[in-house]
Amino acid sequence: MSDPRPIGVFDSGIGGLTVVKELRELLPDEKIFYLGDTARVPYGGKSASTVERYSLEIAEMLIEENAKIVVVACNTASSVALPKLEKTLSVPVIGVIKPGARAASRVTRNRHIGVIGTRATIKSGAYEKALREFDVGLRVSSLACPLLVPLIEEGWLEDELTDRTIGRYLEPLANGGIDTLVLGCTHYPLLTGAIARVLKHKVSLVDSARNCATAVQELLDRYSLCAPSGNNGSLKVALTDQPDNFLRVAREALDLDVGKIQLREVLHGAVQV
Amino acid sequence: MSDPRPIGVFDSGIGGLTVVKELRELLPDEKIFYLGDTARVPYGGKSASTVERYSLEIAEMLIEENAKIVVVACNTASSVALPKLEKTLSVPVIGVIKPGARAASRVTRNRHIGVIGTRATIKSGAYEKALREFDVGLRVSSLACPLLVPLIEEGWLEDELTDRTIGRYLEPLANGGIDTLVLGCTHYPLLTGAIARVLKHKVSLVDSARNCATAVQELLDRYSLCAPSGNNGSLKVALTDQPDNFLRVAREALDLDVGKIQLREVLHGAVQV
Repeated sequence: MSDPRPIGVFDSGIGGLTVVKELRELLPDEKIFYLGDTARVPYGGKSASTVERYSLEIAEMLIEENAKIVVVACNTASSVALPKLEKTLSVPVIGVIKPGARAASRVTRNRHIGVIGTRATIKSGAYEKALREFDVGLRVSSLACPLLVPLIEEGWLEDELTDRTIGRYLEPLANGGIDTLVLGCTHYPLLTGAIARVLKHKVSLVDSARNCATAVQELLDRYSLCAPSGNNGSLKVALTDQPDNFLRVAREALDLDVGKIQLREVLHGAVQV
Repeated sequence: MSDPRPIGVFDSGIGGLTVVKELRELLPDEKIFYLGDTARVPYGGKSASTVERYSLEIAEMLIEENAKIVVVACNTASSVALPKLEKTLSVPVIGVIKPGARAASRVTRNRHIGVIGTRATIKSGAYEKALREFDVGLRVSSLACPLLVPLIEEGWLEDELTDRTIGRYLEPLANGGIDTLVLGCTHYPLLTGAIARVLKHKVSLVDSARNCATAVQELLDRYSLCAPSGNNGSLKVALTDQPDNFLRVAREALDLDVGKIQLREVLHGAVQV
């Protein structure tokens, strides 16, 4: 059994392309349709109900693109909207939280794990919950790092000020004794080098993008949804608003060919007062 | 002639409260209704057409609140949506660009002015255009500073890393010879101290919030729309999403009593693919 339809991937913006990069490497035969909600980016500082509503709207646009599964390549949306998406959508849905939590629970030796992400992701407690499903005795230290996404989007990836900001955020976590750190935002793989440098390579980094791609592969196998071998793998990228500087940064840092960007409109119809 | 109706003020989020602070001080008899579009904040990285659509939606909510004038307390929205708002709304509209440009053109001695703002504001060229309407011979050096808003929202107002980031952005402008700098984002008055420090107090800072408040006063006088004297001045704040950490930062830094925050929903109805 095989299925030639595309894998649908969405994120609040461009950051989820880190997941696409891993999917393209792991599953080169698959067609991927990526939709970034750049008209309303970022989701990270918004309330759970707003993120849930936006996520559902964007996921339904992927279904209209004939997606065979929906990959939520956004930690914020995975944290707060996954149950609603699973209940509502007609295809399997996979997020980034559980794959990252599973990997971290396997990597840690001292069972003390750090998690960094946006305000909304950290506030949701989704990683703590997922980690404790794998090992109820884990100690988890979580921290919102709201400056990292704008630093990445500015393209300051190898930069002393970025290193210093990371240090400000992460030194208390490292001094607290974590031996493993979950990069709980799909932007963060672009800072892997800087984070490892600041932590002096003493803490294992768990990349939610890579672990999500592995979980997608398992899911396709389980549901017999893999593309036929020799399928012509491809990537189409659509955004809900014109791309800005960060698309260039991500494309270069990831060495990813995104082709011609399509635009999709999210309508903001009636206003209720 | 006088008019007891409220002044309607909007911004993409919380930053416009710097304008409210100045309005409250200058016009204590006026009722103010402030609406922050926190469900879709920030506007600064989004395209002109998206910002125009959002601005119109939010301004119409102010009209439904019976606003006698609409103050666009957001540089991004003022830059790209003001013509559309002026054409569509039934009440006078005032933005932050022209008042700031007028003040800067009066302050400069060497006729070389710097402008900083979000990517969308700078890309629009609105300040250059407005400045040259006051003095066609001005030299204008503009720069997008996308990290300043997140630094402010993190509350790092008096902080070495913030000073260093400001230095990275502003030293080339200062070395280029500007004698006046327009703070072209309503968040930036919260960094006035830091910016003055980095520039060693050698450059005059023009605060778009304060100049906007002065222009509002002139507009109310011109249209005979001032509140009756002895009117009970007040402030109501509504947001389109739950407030986060930055509301606390702004309230404390501005020493502003915002009362109980109301929520207003912007509906995202049909999705067009």
